[in-house]
Amino acid sequence: LNKADVARQLLTGCATSPAKTRGEAFAPSNIALCKYWGKRDDDLNLPMTSSVSISLGDLGTRTALSMAEGADTVTLNGEVLARDSTFALGVSRFLDLVRPHRAAGFRVETVNSIPTAAGLASSASGFAALALALDDLFGWRLDPKRLSILARLGSGSAARSVLKGFVEWRAGDSPDGMDSFAEALPERWPDFRIGLLTVSSRPKAVGSREAMRRTRETSALYHVWPAIVERDLALIKEAVSARDFDRLGRTAESNALNMHATSLGAWPPVLFWLPESVALMHRIWALREDGPAVYFTMDAGPNIKLLFLAAETAVVKSLFPEVHIIAPFG
Amino acid sequence: LNKADVARQLLTGCATSPAKTRGEAFAPSNIALCKYWGKRDDDLNLPMTSSVSISLGDLGTRTALSMAEGADTVTLNGEVLARDSTFALGVSRFLDLVRPHRAAGFRVETVNSIPTAAGLASSASGFAALALALDDLFGWRLDPKRLSILARLGSGSAARSVLKGFVEWRAGDSPDGMDSFAEALPERWPDFRIGLLTVSSRPKAVGSREAMRRTRETSALYHVWPAIVERDLALIKEAVSARDFDRLGRTAESNALNMHATSLGAWPPVLFWLPESVALMHRIWALREDGPAVYFTMDAGPNIKLLFLAAETAVVKSLFPEVHIIAPFG
Repeated sequence: LNKADVARQLLTGCATSPAKTRGEAFAPSNIALCKYWGKRDDDLNLPMTSSVSISLGDLGTRTALSMAEGADTVTLNGEVLARDSTFALGVSRFLDLVRPHRAAGFRVETVNSIPTAAGLASSASGFAALALALDDLFGWRLDPKRLSILARLGSGSAARSVLKGFVEWRAGDSPDGMDSFAEALPERWPDFRIGLLTVSSRPKAVGSREAMRRTRETSALYHVWPAIVERDLALIKEAVSARDFDRLGRTAESNALNMHATSLGAWPPVLFWLPESVALMHRIWALREDGPAVYFTMDAGPNIKLLFLAAETAVVKSLFPEVHIIAPFG
Repeated sequence: LNKADVARQLLTGCATSPAKTRGEAFAPSNIALCKYWGKRDDDLNLPMTSSVSISLGDLGTRTALSMAEGADTVTLNGEVLARDSTFALGVSRFLDLVRPHRAAGFRVETVNSIPTAAGLASSASGFAALALALDDLFGWRLDPKRLSILARLGSGSAARSVLKGFVEWRAGDSPDGMDSFAEALPERWPDFRIGLLTVSSRPKAVGSREAMRRTRETSALYHVWPAIVERDLALIKEAVSARDFDRLGRTAESNALNMHATSLGAWPPVLFWLPESVALMHRIWALREDGPAVYFTMDAGPNIKLLFLAAETAVVKSLFPEVHIIAPFG
């Protein structure tokens, strides 16, 4: 089974020609509170474990799509991309899954509202918006489950970006991944805040795909990761449902540190942190000793994402003047 | 069973009065290549796993000992210590194990040849030198195994500091710890070098005893630690015996990173690193990409210990002008 097979299966009975001249969609970026770390299928982006994220409101990707004979053209924030750029190649490869015939081309206009240099991955919102825009263009009206699976074929964490608020992506266990899709949790938490602290927006020395692979294959610590996720996933869902922010923050921070720890155990070792990342961590821990419930999470990179409630906004701003604060529920 | 019971058992039939007026001994500091991390008995300093270290030649502690009625007096590098200082209290508590009668006091003169601010723990060489000096003072002529056990009652890693060169401390499994002692490996490796890079000599935020306890009790990653040690111990002994420096360096570095990783998984998280530690790690990894076989290890603190062979001395000195180089075999 490869991506093309799964896409064919997923879109059985769906129209192969556009229902309108222009499809359009927005998908939010998302930050995992319980991380997706390690694939059970590299091609289908099937995860070893389930994960939980929070979608970032109106920070994300807006994509408009139309068809035209010939090669695809991809623009990003108004700029036409070279056909051999990583982003354009990734988009075209994804569009191959739904391309009605060989000569069919797409015009893809992508606008990211993620602040440049925020160090947020744009692949999650990017592929989610692309999947949603395809659905709009072809008039498929796929259910959320199928949209999530389609987005996942572009990038694992895109499975979560087709939804808003708190989102759980269930790992599933079928080889075709038809049971591996995201669902929204019912809770809204308007006071929930995320603070982006950007240490570096340079490309990472080791990409997440390679880091995941190396960790899964060489780190003995990774053997415990599925058990850690099982524990943390339950704690996070309980904490969200009980509005227990301390438990949520503690669990999310611990989950991120455990994820980074598994990579340290790989060989060659993978350390995403820069000196500034460690300086920030020590500052957050020192702050917490003084009382304020400010926690953090980190993805496969050096940047820090603070987790706090609206009441701590002033404290956070005064201690981290460079912070970019997001209110995921608007 | 407590320390006093074990000491009584260990010294059965041994003289309880001095054989001479002054006992004297030197013990080297040591750096673990496969770490001691986690106790199975907090009072007897019995480790969860075996470990392997390299003793640091003439860097260590020289201790002279004599008896006098009244309270103990402890001098460190020529300075009389306050009776309630951590070091003096620790020494007196250890001497309680062998004190012939309540009113018997000891004069302890301790000189550390470890460069101040080198960030090397002095408890290992300190308690090893004390155990050896007691043996000299009382004329016990204990075998190396008993000397190692006696030193261990003062501090776990002191079990290894009664010996020179490469040293293995076998965890043992008996509750009284009579099978938990160190033995020297037969190999000498005159080209072996250690480079101390001192990031900070300030006391740590979390001491190693507390960090070990917290990690063992709260970090799920710690469950894999015994298996990691079993693997690394065998690899290190093979590497020493085959003079395979790359394998030795790789294994020692990975072992240290895995140890630090288990602590990251604790709650509250334990991170011994400072920003400068991470900067140094990235510099070492970048250097290695260029060829030179320079590895590192780290103990429960922010400092880095480079591992390399004599041939790389010039490279190491030019890249790390502040390095303090040790030739463990003289």
